[in-house]
Amino acid sequence: MGERIAATVIEADNAKRRPALDADYAALGERLARRGVDIEAIRQKVAAYGVAIPSWGVGTGGTRFARFPGPGEPRHIFDKLNDCAVIQALTRATPSVSLHIPWDKVDDLGELTDTASTLGLRFDAMNSNTFQDQPGQSHSYKFGSLSHSDSATRNQAIEHNLECIAIGKALGSTALTVWVGDGSNFPGQSHFTRSFERYLESMRAIYADLPDDWRVFTEHKIFEPAFYSTVVQDWGTNYLIAQELGPKAFCLVDLGHHAPTVNIEMIVARLVQFGKLGGFHFNDSRYGDDDLDTGAIDPYRLFLVFNELVDAETRGAKGFDPAHMLDQSHNVTDPIESLMTSAMEVQRAYAQALIVDRVALAAFQDDNDALMASETLKQAFRTDVEPILAKARLDAGGAIAPVPCYRAAGYRAKVAAERPQSTSLGGGIV
Amino acid sequence: MGERIAATVIEADNAKRRPALDADYAALGERLARRGVDIEAIRQKVAAYGVAIPSWGVGTGGTRFARFPGPGEPRHIFDKLNDCAVIQALTRATPSVSLHIPWDKVDDLGELTDTASTLGLRFDAMNSNTFQDQPGQSHSYKFGSLSHSDSATRNQAIEHNLECIAIGKALGSTALTVWVGDGSNFPGQSHFTRSFERYLESMRAIYADLPDDWRVFTEHKIFEPAFYSTVVQDWGTNYLIAQELGPKAFCLVDLGHHAPTVNIEMIVARLVQFGKLGGFHFNDSRYGDDDLDTGAIDPYRLFLVFNELVDAETRGAKGFDPAHMLDQSHNVTDPIESLMTSAMEVQRAYAQALIVDRVALAAFQDDNDALMASETLKQAFRTDVEPILAKARLDAGGAIAPVPCYRAAGYRAKVAAERPQSTSLGGGIV
Amino acid sequence: MGERIAATVIEADNAKRRPALDADYAALGERLARRGVDIEAIRQKVAAYGVAIPSWGVGTGGTRFARFPGPGEPRHIFDKLNDCAVIQALTRATPSVSLHIPWDKVDDLGELTDTASTLGLRFDAMNSNTFQDQPGQSHSYKFGSLSHSDSATRNQAIEHNLECIAIGKALGSTALTVWVGDGSNFPGQSHFTRSFERYLESMRAIYADLPDDWRVFTEHKIFEPAFYSTVVQDWGTNYLIAQELGPKAFCLVDLGHHAPTVNIEMIVARLVQFGKLGGFHFNDSRYGDDDLDTGAIDPYRLFLVFNELVDAETRGAKGFDPAHMLDQSHNVTDPIESLMTSAMEVQRAYAQALIVDRVALAAFQDDNDALMASETLKQAFRTDVEPILAKARLDAGGAIAPVPCYRAAGYRAKVAAERPQSTSLGGGIV
Amino acid sequence: MGERIAATVIEADNAKRRPALDADYAALGERLARRGVDIEAIRQKVAAYGVAIPSWGVGTGGTRFARFPGPGEPRHIFDKLNDCAVIQALTRATPSVSLHIPWDKVDDLGELTDTASTLGLRFDAMNSNTFQDQPGQSHSYKFGSLSHSDSATRNQAIEHNLECIAIGKALGSTALTVWVGDGSNFPGQSHFTRSFERYLESMRAIYADLPDDWRVFTEHKIFEPAFYSTVVQDWGTNYLIAQELGPKAFCLVDLGHHAPTVNIEMIVARLVQFGKLGGFHFNDSRYGDDDLDTGAIDPYRLFLVFNELVDAETRGAKGFDPAHMLDQSHNVTDPIESLMTSAMEVQRAYAQALIVDRVALAAFQDDNDALMASETLKQAFRTDVEPILAKARLDAGGAIAPVPCYRAAGYRAKVAAERPQSTSLGGGIV
Repeated sequence: MGERIAATVIEADNAKRRPALDADYAALGERLARRGVDIEAIRQKVAAYGVAIPSWGVGTGGTRFARFPGPGEPRHIFDKLNDCAVIQALTRATPSVSLHIPWDKVDDLGELTDTASTLGLRFDAMNSNTFQDQPGQSHSYKFGSLSHSDSATRNQAIEHNLECIAIGKALGSTALTVWVGDGSNFPGQSHFTRSFERYLESMRAIYADLPDDWRVFTEHKIFEPAFYSTVVQDWGTNYLIAQELGPKAFCLVDLGHHAPTVNIEMIVARLVQFGKLGGFHFNDSRYGDDDLDTGAIDPYRLFLVFNELVDAETRGAKGFDPAHMLDQSHNVTDPIESLMTSAMEVQRAYAQALIVDRVALAAFQDDNDALMASETLKQAFRTDVEPILAKARLDAGGAIAPVPCYRAAGYRAKVAAERPQSTSLGGGIV
Repeated sequence: MGERIAATVIEADNAKRRPALDADYAALGERLARRGVDIEAIRQKVAAYGVAIPSWGVGTGGTRFARFPGPGEPRHIFDKLNDCAVIQALTRATPSVSLHIPWDKVDDLGELTDTASTLGLRFDAMNSNTFQDQPGQSHSYKFGSLSHSDSATRNQAIEHNLECIAIGKALGSTALTVWVGDGSNFPGQSHFTRSFERYLESMRAIYADLPDDWRVFTEHKIFEPAFYSTVVQDWGTNYLIAQELGPKAFCLVDLGHHAPTVNIEMIVARLVQFGKLGGFHFNDSRYGDDDLDTGAIDPYRLFLVFNELVDAETRGAKGFDPAHMLDQSHNVTDPIESLMTSAMEVQRAYAQALIVDRVALAAFQDDNDALMASETLKQAFRTDVEPILAKARLDAGGAIAPVPCYRAAGYRAKVAAERPQSTSLGGGIV
Repeated sequence: MGERIAATVIEADNAKRRPALDADYAALGERLARRGVDIEAIRQKVAAYGVAIPSWGVGTGGTRFARFPGPGEPRHIFDKLNDCAVIQALTRATPSVSLHIPWDKVDDLGELTDTASTLGLRFDAMNSNTFQDQPGQSHSYKFGSLSHSDSATRNQAIEHNLECIAIGKALGSTALTVWVGDGSNFPGQSHFTRSFERYLESMRAIYADLPDDWRVFTEHKIFEPAFYSTVVQDWGTNYLIAQELGPKAFCLVDLGHHAPTVNIEMIVARLVQFGKLGGFHFNDSRYGDDDLDTGAIDPYRLFLVFNELVDAETRGAKGFDPAHMLDQSHNVTDPIESLMTSAMEVQRAYAQALIVDRVALAAFQDDNDALMASETLKQAFRTDVEPILAKARLDAGGAIAPVPCYRAAGYRAKVAAERPQSTSLGGGIV
Repeated sequence: MGERIAATVIEADNAKRRPALDADYAALGERLARRGVDIEAIRQKVAAYGVAIPSWGVGTGGTRFARFPGPGEPRHIFDKLNDCAVIQALTRATPSVSLHIPWDKVDDLGELTDTASTLGLRFDAMNSNTFQDQPGQSHSYKFGSLSHSDSATRNQAIEHNLECIAIGKALGSTALTVWVGDGSNFPGQSHFTRSFERYLESMRAIYADLPDDWRVFTEHKIFEPAFYSTVVQDWGTNYLIAQELGPKAFCLVDLGHHAPTVNIEMIVARLVQFGKLGGFHFNDSRYGDDDLDTGAIDPYRLFLVFNELVDAETRGAKGFDPAHMLDQSHNVTDPIESLMTSAMEVQRAYAQALIVDRVALAAFQDDNDALMASETLKQAFRTDVEPILAKARLDAGGAIAPVPCYRAAGYRAKVAAERPQSTSLGGGIV
């Protein structure tokens, strides 16, 4: 495989941008110093931050109506890892990859770990798939998987999750993420309680197989692919699952899986308070699980989520250790560009949350000075922390401006020449 | 006080309607018999059903923009009880009244119990009020009550709830309903976790004072009067409260307190499953806490809620004993008419849920026959059970057609002559 | 092809059900007569009512995550027509089929008209497809079609619509339905005004080619497949399109294409008032364009839509002539069963709306008697009109109970034996 | 009345902050210069920008549940003007006040104009009120005003609007804003079409009285105070009104009056395109018409609205001349502080929109480079333009930091000493 973005390209691009960055960083440093914030401390925290890339994210997504492939789409997990390595090379913010089974299944797991190691990547949480049927599968998931009314189907789904754990163990992963499409499209189709009891029973079997140092993350979602009810519809049910399963079970929050108008940052706070926040699938949305690029639609909401996270970190909330992953569908952009931009958006929100004056904020909260409390958050959010992010990337060997640098490097054209054009148009499912 | 709807008026009105009712009841009985349903058994269950009236419901409601008073509005709890007695006289479905303190506070509790007893009414759950300031109150609830950052304010709110319990004990009530307006209008205004910890601490103090045979119901609400966050925003938080407090604490579900598109019947099922369903505030809504007449907007949703309740009743779900109350704001109707109609809507949904073929439904669910499962519910919902309701009223001494009978009796005109026209135009708060 | 549901099967099934139907019809007739409604008049109107079936509706649908094929899926338009003929044979409510180009494209249009004619089916509106790329297509619709920034792509999309008109002319269709997936996933991606100007320009070219006796229906949709903005996002924009194009242009209302909480029946009323209601795509939904079976989620909403339609019909609203079509995605049911059930739901809502006492309603509206106005609608909605529908089917040669009769006839097993099992699992697009 | 914030207080506060501002302004100037943006040109545009204050905004708002008065609330329009003058003195961004009749009605209009003139304030659009009853009013608006079924009530509402025009003429206003609460709480309560026809007829009568140089703005709102339907429910209906009335009629967009998830900036673009954008009521919201401080919840949405406005301004969209006003309910803050902060938020969004690189953006749009188009907007939004705003205020005699300066000046304490504490607790309307 080898190096796909030449270090010389990065260096040349950085060289052009360096003087402006230095000036901006210095000006921002002065400004932050006036507020009592040490820019270097922030930079170090930002530099240490990483968000995982889902292996499926580097392919072009689509909708039930259609998929419009892009050039040079990855053919298999090795191509995907290569694309992920490019993202990491330029952003230095994405050190790990989250695999999806069976999409990323290979015969030789040693080859997989070797490749990742060569590319400087680690493996994040394993993702199981019981929302699709695979060719030749014994039992269909058309009417559910872990909550299916038929025990053979449930057992097949359990076995699949156990296989994901086994693969993950070989790869050095320490977490399993379980998202199911189980639910119903008609009132009456499912018995809510019996379905959930079956789900819990299946999850207990999976949990029993979980290694001691692993965690299991369950994910809730209000709708899609089921359109009347879902078995794990919201954080309330998700919390009950984590509580029923035990101390290694935690709740995953995908930013697009909630009802309209729901206050997501408050859900984050509740899960932190009760010791069950497992982590995030970051993306952005306006209507449903739109899976748009993180921060593209409502960047302040993303900041408010990170405000909770930094608050929990700062006060040392018990058991606080959330996993961070992007989970997006890139339908109209180059996935590598979207993932780089999104990783930087997550970092940006983190940096902005780090410069919130928490002492002042707490005082305004105690005094019920709503306006100044709000302004305290807004001041941090309004701060353009891009120089901090850019400096962190530069120091780590990445690009000051990842997207222009990536374009300059011509990576997409190179892989398009190597990888056959995808003809999978998908969709037509209206 | 005395009888306000003359029995002769009811009898005369019923006499006119009796032949048609008999014919319809017989035809329905035949039809149900074909499905294996005994109409008499359904009628008996319906006859035994009751829903509580909130004392404030008999007054005309309003919005922040305005209130448009109606004629003959009740001046105090005694007028309100009289109005409630009319509702019960005609519908025989509303045997109890839920009081609100301080709105219904009186010097002589004995007079209150005597009056209720004379009118054939019981007292349902007590409702505390810490979402408003009362003239002369030491500490304002502008920035919260049970979760306020100031302990003196919290203590005042706790004391008020203890007073409600004390009054309730004297009146024969056995439940306290706690709804607070606490929340925030700006990101940052409140610290989610510290606010909730203070709320829990306050509730524990109230819980500690709860008599052994009492229950406490907490109510969640996504927004209004707070518009960024509320302390008890959804059933997930509500469940955590009930779990933290103990076995006498339960969750109340108001049908209008959820995010758009949320599946309420599923929340009901979850709370039943985990033993924490306290009861309901029935109403209907499309946009928010619209507090419209029950079943006026989406009668099928109401039926689906009752489908869960009858299912739980049928299978003897452990600890299942929910309280039923109407909670509506009557802005453009005669409140007595709306409450009678709504009580009948609740009964109707109950009756429809009772005739669901649950054996067939369970089989369709096990077979994943989604269409027939849906049709099984729809068949019950489509059944016009009005003859059953009317017969149950008639047998109990009520009116076959409560609204026309009420209008014929001229009650509103009578009380309008006795009670001065309200001049409280409210609103102007935009 | 020939007859796929033997008349003898229908007759045998009907014979069993006839006595109960006669009894129920008589009882309902009496009940309606008491209200001054002539059941025969209602039955005749219901019998004359028809709703079109979309050709794609008889196949199993799916989501971006997966498709779970059913047995005996139609392979091509001839299989689809056969399935549609079964629906019509049993329900007598679906006399026409709406084609989709290129999915239903054939070499020999004469064979198509002959087949339809033999099966007793007509062709409804033609549907164009510019939301997908077809293999070998010159220009991609990834970034739009009729509103694309590139004129060659727009022209290709225009040409495709002209081809749809040409095919439709040969088939006896008199309408073109245009739905585009054009929109954007990011703020800034599209210039709202320039995109819409290009869309209008393209539509004007299509409109110019429309035969004199044709109508063009444009369809709005708030989101999906675009998740930030769509070019025709709501009825306001849709109305502007119809107004800009001219007298043959009308707005199509799909029940699932609106923002949450939007009052759809009011949109229907406005479009009727301003002479631009083209017709409907019926389905049901809770979250988005869920495409569930019509009336499965909120049957009262469906009734309220028909209440507007019957009101317009009754008062002879100028130019009122809407087209009626089902448009659903059947992911977990036999599509034929869902379409039969949905066609009956639409008929049911129509029948219920027909028995609304409109004279009384108008008087209550003029008197601001909100409660009685509401009850007037509810009384009609609560009436179980199934006997009217069943009688209309029976009289026309259809089945009293289409779904049980269909199951008894074994049609699905028969076609499953003839048509190879679909292996198109779709999805995997997350 | 006289000067309420001493110039010396402002000067002293500014003096402290001047050096930091100069440094920040210079650094920002350099940064913008690198992007080809002249900071001085931006500052001049920002300095020329003004947003109107609604007279009712300086009082404390509330909800139907309660109102919690603040200290020193204005007693009448003269107090309100004084408060508005403070806002203008410190922000230099709010040169005009929008009056509400009858709340601001006075006997001597000359005194009003003199006072405003002395305070350096102008009068913006006049607001009529037919959503409340006033003591002694002949006809109630309980069931509507301009669309009421009774012509006497409609005429009363028309007359009231004519009176507003007459008062406005005397005060130098040139616009009338009409918002009505008309609608319904029950399906069936209102006949959609007849109600809207009556509304249009009433508006035509008002329009006929409009002076030649006036404009009339109509405002749509999806819900509240009516909870099933509103007569002017969305921009589609609003557009039809403006079109029916004529060239002096325009649509007003309140940011909180839309269904959840609706794309407001797109509505703005459509109204600009069709020449009917009248102006704005700025505020922020998450759930409904929450009337929170502008930009407090979703600042990026506010920016996207201004992006459309600057785009229209830049390309000289025909007839583009929108009115800008704040319209908020301040329940938990000092209204003066909220209005100052909100005026600055509006300015901020304007400044950020001004620095969008529109040439680059247009090129990205034409090339379908979605990611770079998004980043072009985000880069402008991320820019902290506070130094530009502060410099514009400073140059015009205002405060660099209005809120701290206002607090330092002790204005609220001064007026609290003069104005009796409000005892209007409102609410209790549940």
